Amino acid sequence: MLTQVTLHDIESIAIGAGILGTGGGGDPYLESLHLRRAIHTLGLPQVLDPQVLADNARVVVIGYIGAPTVSIEKLPKGTELVRAIRLLEQHLGQRMDAIGIAEIGGGNALGPLIAGLQAGIPTLDADGMGRAFPEMQMSTYLFHNDVPVAPFTMVEARDNAVVVPHTVSAVWAERIARNLAVSMGATAGLAGFVMTGAQFKAYCVPYTLSLAHRLGQRVLTARKQGEDAPQVIAETLAGRVLFRGKIVDVNRRTTKGFARGTLTLHGYAGEQETLFIEFQNEFLIARLNGAVVATVPDLICIVTEDEGQPVATELLRYGTRVAVLGVPAAPQLKSSTALKVVGPQAFGYDVEFTPLPGACIGVSS
Amino acid sequence: MLTQVTLHDIESIAIGAGILGTGGGGDPYLESLHLRRAIHTLGLPQVLDPQVLADNARVVVIGYIGAPTVSIEKLPKGTELVRAIRLLEQHLGQRMDAIGIAEIGGGNALGPLIAGLQAGIPTLDADGMGRAFPEMQMSTYLFHNDVPVAPFTMVEARDNAVVVPHTVSAVWAERIARNLAVSMGATAGLAGFVMTGAQFKAYCVPYTLSLAHRLGQRVLTARKQGEDAPQVIAETLAGRVLFRGKIVDVNRRTTKGFARGTLTLHGYAGEQETLFIEFQNEFLIARLNGAVVATVPDLICIVTEDEGQPVATELLRYGTRVAVLGVPAAPQLKSSTALKVVGPQAFGYDVEFTPLPGACIGVSS
Repeated sequence: MLTQVTLHDIESIAIGAGILGTGGGGDPYLESLHLRRAIHTLGLPQVLDPQVLADNARVVVIGYIGAPTVSIEKLPKGTELVRAIRLLEQHLGQRMDAIGIAEIGGGNALGPLIAGLQAGIPTLDADGMGRAFPEMQMSTYLFHNDVPVAPFTMVEARDNAVVVPHTVSAVWAERIARNLAVSMGATAGLAGFVMTGAQFKAYCVPYTLSLAHRLGQRVLTARKQGEDAPQVIAETLAGRVLFRGKIVDVNRRTTKGFARGTLTLHGYAGEQETLFIEFQNEFLIARLNGAVVATVPDLICIVTEDEGQPVATELLRYGTRVAVLGVPAAPQLKSSTALKVVGPQAFGYDVEFTPLPGACIGVSS
Repeated sequence: MLTQVTLHDIESIAIGAGILGTGGGGDPYLESLHLRRAIHTLGLPQVLDPQVLADNARVVVIGYIGAPTVSIEKLPKGTELVRAIRLLEQHLGQRMDAIGIAEIGGGNALGPLIAGLQAGIPTLDADGMGRAFPEMQMSTYLFHNDVPVAPFTMVEARDNAVVVPHTVSAVWAERIARNLAVSMGATAGLAGFVMTGAQFKAYCVPYTLSLAHRLGQRVLTARKQGEDAPQVIAETLAGRVLFRGKIVDVNRRTTKGFARGTLTLHGYAGEQETLFIEFQNEFLIARLNGAVVATVPDLICIVTEDEGQPVATELLRYGTRVAVLGVPAAPQLKSSTALKVVGPQAFGYDVEFTPLPGACIGVSS
């Protein structure tokens, strides 16, 4: 298990988080560069096992919100998250003791490590999704109704900042935050979901930072040893390879603060083997020759076929040879309460959730 | 000059503010009903002459932000403005001493009187526009760069609330606030622009509440005495009647938090006499047979021809017989600094501002 993050660990975490991001969560490469610089200046980020967190500790959850297609063009400054924490502390008149990762997917796994260094507090080895999701209310931290989404704060690369002291609901919080993110150039740092250590331990998806790290390490080893990287990833995550083939069509638009679109792949046998994927920042539903083979909350991960390198929504390109994996979601996402918020119907698909068998994320350290 | 507002004054102020609203500022009728109820419950709103305001008093500027087309369907609760003030006071840890009206046009002349009653502080007889404008930065309070637009707060009919502690500029504040207003259902109460009494006195457009009241009284008298109401309004405001005719086309859409569109009128002689008006919440530019006859910041007011009743953007209807007036803007809006923010070019028209002669608004008590 991770207790701190060294320069040597960054690439592994970035690869693992990229895979767990299911297309979203922002570009881990950019955040890797930020983290590298932060380590040179400030030392090593401390990672805390949630089990040793004090019950009365104050935890703040942080992450970037916006469209990943934008975040690779409007680069973050790298201080958005820590400024969001400081603004929230100022609003509450209380210091925070530890950082909760909002989502382990993509760059949002690394940003909290940087903010922890800058704020001088540890980052917890856990997150609130066991993957990435496009909307704020889709968080295990909020499923039990006793952790409030507000107050939350948002800060952008320049000096625009906002405190939201109260919202009617988590869905209203998402609506307000999303429009604010659009106002701020479609990417901003967010801090909120303040909770106790006891609540964090009860609601988080545990040990996902360690999982991302371990997953990335396995991919790097597979590359060195000439193993079949997609197969290695599937095994590490207790999932399976759903499809191998080429991207033949990408229909992507950045709208209302999201990257939305569809993706078509053909197998090497040709069009008679067609995989069709719909996404909203993250890959949400996969249909093989018209039949649903995987849906949210299970993870649909796309990696390059040769190296197992994660392919994010914003980097989908015609002609890339990829493998598409189906990975069973963390159990926390599969309760009937959770499925109302993160199941296929919450995204507007008239499809029942049929879970992929097995479990790995959020069940062990 | 007004020192308090009685039930008897409400109709006059509503008519006068409706005319000065140049199509925007929200429906004075709805706010009239709110004010009537507030007076029954809380007593009479106190109106303060800006000249007697202490130099070190703390003034907060308030008004509704959003699209007037929406505010007549999603009715305000009537406590948005006072809750925005309280939230700002809480954020700053300071109580406010007096209320500055953001814009004298439309319902936004009356809302601050209600909020003053609810907050127990007086409302100043002045505003920051001498009319209504669609965007936040278009305020005389901000033209001198020493009154900060932020912190500001926004509160909607339900329980969604936001504090914006800092923005890069007033234009960024407008962008953020507009998107927040859209998130909140396209109408919300806003409080900000905190300044000293000395600043208020130096930057406000003085005595516009009294002007609205006097204007409305003249219209009511004109109706009783069978006078030509549009002509009476023109004389009271040192303006002139630009056009009389019928509305033959309205092209209006509610987009990005504004009501935008165009309006075509024909004179009684027929199409050879055509007035074409473009609006963004407020009427911005009027062309008679293709030639510009009035532009922002001068006021383009539309009233019914028979009664001189103001016709707001959201109430424009095919076939209405109206008079269109041109009224010279307050001198505070015509400096070269001000014209950069409120002149025709600030709204995207490639037209020089040619001021209508005369002045009445903001020059006397």
